[in-house]
Amino acid sequence: MAAPILSERELEFMLYEMFDAESLTSRERYTDHSRETFTAAINTAKTVAEKYFLPIRQKVDTQQPTFDGKKVSMLPEIKTALDAVIDAGLAAPSSDYDMGGMQLPLTVASAAACYLSAAGSTTLGYISLTNANCNLIEAYGTQDQIERFVHPMREGRFAGTMAMTEPSAGSGLADLTTTATQDENGNYRIKGNKIFISGGDHDLNDNIIHLVLARVKGAPKGVKGISLFIVPKLMVNDDGSLGDKNEVELAGLFHKMGGRGQTSCALSFGEQDGAIGYLVGEENKGLAYMFHMMNEARIMVGTSAAATALTGFQYSLDYSKERPQGRLMASKDPMAAPVNIIEHPDVRRMLLTQKAYAEGAYALCLLGSQLADDEKTAPTEKERVAASTLLDFLTPMIKSWPSEYGPKANYLAIQVLGGHGYINEHPVEMFYRDNRLNPIHEGTTGIQSLDLLGRKVPMKNFAGYKAILAEMAGTIEVASQFEELQGVAKELADAVKQLQATTATVLGATKSQNIDLVFSNSVSYLDMFGHIVIAWLWLKQGMVANAALKEAPHKEDEDFYKGKMQAMQYFYRSELPQVYHWSNLVSSIDSTSFDMHADWF
Amino acid sequence: MAAPILSERELEFMLYEMFDAESLTSRERYTDHSRETFTAAINTAKTVAEKYFLPIRQKVDTQQPTFDGKKVSMLPEIKTALDAVIDAGLAAPSSDYDMGGMQLPLTVASAAACYLSAAGSTTLGYISLTNANCNLIEAYGTQDQIERFVHPMREGRFAGTMAMTEPSAGSGLADLTTTATQDENGNYRIKGNKIFISGGDHDLNDNIIHLVLARVKGAPKGVKGISLFIVPKLMVNDDGSLGDKNEVELAGLFHKMGGRGQTSCALSFGEQDGAIGYLVGEENKGLAYMFHMMNEARIMVGTSAAATALTGFQYSLDYSKERPQGRLMASKDPMAAPVNIIEHPDVRRMLLTQKAYAEGAYALCLLGSQLADDEKTAPTEKERVAASTLLDFLTPMIKSWPSEYGPKANYLAIQVLGGHGYINEHPVEMFYRDNRLNPIHEGTTGIQSLDLLGRKVPMKNFAGYKAILAEMAGTIEVASQFEELQGVAKELADAVKQLQATTATVLGATKSQNIDLVFSNSVSYLDMFGHIVIAWLWLKQGMVANAALKEAPHKEDEDFYKGKMQAMQYFYRSELPQVYHWSNLVSSIDSTSFDMHADWF
Repeated sequence: MAAPILSERELEFMLYEMFDAESLTSRERYTDHSRETFTAAINTAKTVAEKYFLPIRQKVDTQQPTFDGKKVSMLPEIKTALDAVIDAGLAAPSSDYDMGGMQLPLTVASAAACYLSAAGSTTLGYISLTNANCNLIEAYGTQDQIERFVHPMREGRFAGTMAMTEPSAGSGLADLTTTATQDENGNYRIKGNKIFISGGDHDLNDNIIHLVLARVKGAPKGVKGISLFIVPKLMVNDDGSLGDKNEVELAGLFHKMGGRGQTSCALSFGEQDGAIGYLVGEENKGLAYMFHMMNEARIMVGTSAAATALTGFQYSLDYSKERPQGRLMASKDPMAAPVNIIEHPDVRRMLLTQKAYAEGAYALCLLGSQLADDEKTAPTEKERVAASTLLDFLTPMIKSWPSEYGPKANYLAIQVLGGHGYINEHPVEMFYRDNRLNPIHEGTTGIQSLDLLGRKVPMKNFAGYKAILAEMAGTIEVASQFEELQGVAKELADAVKQLQATTATVLGATKSQNIDLVFSNSVSYLDMFGHIVIAWLWLKQGMVANAALKEAPHKEDEDFYKGKMQAMQYFYRSELPQVYHWSNLVSSIDSTSFDMHADWF
Repeated sequence: MAAPILSERELEFMLYEMFDAESLTSRERYTDHSRETFTAAINTAKTVAEKYFLPIRQKVDTQQPTFDGKKVSMLPEIKTALDAVIDAGLAAPSSDYDMGGMQLPLTVASAAACYLSAAGSTTLGYISLTNANCNLIEAYGTQDQIERFVHPMREGRFAGTMAMTEPSAGSGLADLTTTATQDENGNYRIKGNKIFISGGDHDLNDNIIHLVLARVKGAPKGVKGISLFIVPKLMVNDDGSLGDKNEVELAGLFHKMGGRGQTSCALSFGEQDGAIGYLVGEENKGLAYMFHMMNEARIMVGTSAAATALTGFQYSLDYSKERPQGRLMASKDPMAAPVNIIEHPDVRRMLLTQKAYAEGAYALCLLGSQLADDEKTAPTEKERVAASTLLDFLTPMIKSWPSEYGPKANYLAIQVLGGHGYINEHPVEMFYRDNRLNPIHEGTTGIQSLDLLGRKVPMKNFAGYKAILAEMAGTIEVASQFEELQGVAKELADAVKQLQATTATVLGATKSQNIDLVFSNSVSYLDMFGHIVIAWLWLKQGMVANAALKEAPHKEDEDFYKGKMQAMQYFYRSELPQVYHWSNLVSSIDSTSFDMHADWF
């Protein structure tokens, strides 16, 4: 079976027909680029994915990293694959030329990363984390810190991590207890334990640069007393050469259900004198800096979840076209040859659901990338601020919608393959396991829902909230002019109206009712908002497809666009109506969960 | 962490308060039994589960059976655990005394099995399959076959399998190609390949008895030409001693995502002269016989799915009561100690959802067991026929509802634990993997939905359909008399009305429209029916709890019953309303999936 990793036609549609990536070439930062250079970068990613990621996919999953008490051992093929990414310039293709990057728009970089992520999200994870680490130090670190740590990371010699979680402080960062004490040289000494540190130790790079959250002595309690430190595994001398071992010890590896190629580590910092750490920016502002990294990481998580959903869809689609089994109900002839299973309507339902989820999720992620590009390079300050506001607003949905619906898509990929989907001869069971991490890390779905309703909606006098409503209203207005889209445009308009009423009700309730009660249905609010945003993005896809179908496209394109129209219809018929149910729960301030006592379970 | 495998109070409630298992002791078959003997059997199962299953649970998962090309090697602890089950009389506790059983009602046996299944569904699988095999031969085999094969299986010396699936015939049994040719001695020679044979080979027993579907030469095409054969791994001599090896070869083991303790085998029958097989019953009636086994297996699958959901719920509940993290939103004091996560309303939502799914699913399975008891032992022929009809009708739901909602419950168990739920230090990630098989084997959810709508609803002039409607109407009438239940009773009545209208519409449509189109939403019909049946079972639980609360129960019972009321409320507020959405899809004969062309994907 040689199922494609992703559909090339789909990526092309997303980039150039939905998000008009080509128009970015008119911006100063991207003047060296053209659709040709974009395509070249994506094709390179595809080649690296096919040549280095795909062949080791199963091996990476079944032969987990091991720790003998001294050293972590990894499959050497992972190193080869990572080197191929770096050699191809794909490690951080959107970073500045003078940082070794290609200044590729994030929209295009996301498409390239989608290939790598779909073929090996675990393997790519090392690079993505290192990038996020670099971006943070570039934004808030000193010139010395950039030269000493970022340059070698950008070159692929060092790796980077983010070390936040502690045994007693997972989602609750306020309670983290790792300490930092300034020594006589002005450096900080870090002491504490961190867990679930992705890429926390391994033998893939010469050095590992940890970004560690810790409390300086006397700092305020809670999240306002958290500072951020660079803590290298090996010290880095002024000339860039490697020095002594810092006090960072691997206490153990966790054994995960999926994402098995990426180590998940328990790290112990400073068991003796304290690990040497370098303060990033100012004391007590660590969480704000980390959020710089975390917002990026959240979009990365969404994209990875979408990529895994897309590739599972492709795989099960390919299988369904080649696997004969059973007959249609209308066929009463037991002598007739079995049909390929894609002919069974229920299999088509499962494929269409995957298509609606995976392509909808990916559109949302690409929108996030486009907004990140606009935030940086849109022509006017006003546009840049608007993009920043909208991106900030959408981030909890970009993180959580693909993370929740990606696994559901992978569930259906397994179901399409039946018993064959449950065994490791096919990768869909691995996709299902890999994708299950995404609703957990970088802020659980519950955390995202509190962020959306509690912070993002009222933020800046509802600026982000109003912006997305305005975007949707604009699309509805245009779509309503087309007969083929009037129905769904009306359905979206109704759902948006319901969303506005729900939002007003729930925020109104916070003034008079227990805040924990009002927020107890925040996940349903996130579900509702997420589904409406995805429905909006499906309408936008439908608009593109509808227009293209009127241009008498050739057969293959005609099929493609009809598939888009059908997936849009699927989302509107089978998914969008659920928002009314969620709205009822939220608007009525349903107290069922809130009222449940611990003792009653 | 020492989370209980199951809640004892919950089992007691189900058996004695919901299903009045004690009343069975008045039936002749069970006259030796009493509530005390029931409790003793369940406690024995609990002890075996705690002593033999739980300690090896993780090991069974991480150290899969291996095949060196000659022999399958298993963990010896599995054999010890299985022997403990057999020694305790729990292998087939409901079978006749003269077959070595305890004549325990299936209702009670199901509760005992629930403990073993929750603590090690994979390990129990060997025994469950062997039982189902025995039951089939007892029902349709000759006295010689029973003595030669069933007795040693009942004693635990032999194991049994069902060998249906072939590489080119999974759900589509019509296409199976294994052949059976009668030889000069009147025996049949079997040739063909089977896959996904659970327990198909291992070293746990002296011999393995396969029940194999095959076609006799010249048999009609399709499912009407399938016969059933007993094919032992080793021949069994007239005196019961083991003879030569039969031509049954292990071609390989499959590596499953979960359920890893139970081998899944590719078996090759009769590579030379043909494996010797003994016809069960008559030629060409094999599928009907196999369905005897399969109906039992389907209830077993549902029960296993429910058990895994129940134990995941218990585990995450226990964790949530001991894990401090974060503060309530209303608490503005960063100095306050973190609360246990069960105090967070969103965690309570995830626990309540699990409770509603798992206990609802288990109630449905126990209803199935009760009907199976009634089918066999109800006082009058009329009652026995009625039970048989209703059980037959409910079987697709008993198989599929727990199988679909069990994994959803396990998904939430992981989410409650956060990152800790994703690693194998805790068993919830294993539950999630184990439970994913259940929507696939013994007939996928899609197959169950076609069985329900296409066969079970119109069956016997709608007898089963009318019977469940009558049951629900009776419950609604009684519940409506209680102020506390009037609201939910009304909601159930409305949903049932909707179901009746939907059923009439969809069956009416089969007369004028393409049958494959009309059935293309059969899974939504199954979703709808399943949710309504579970809502009905929650109303029944609510009735019991409501009555008990009026009797001034002691604090612990009061808490328990309040939890029942709250879970019922949860199901009615958060789950039941979805049936209207499914109803719309089904009633409108939504053609989205049907219209989608393979080329459009």
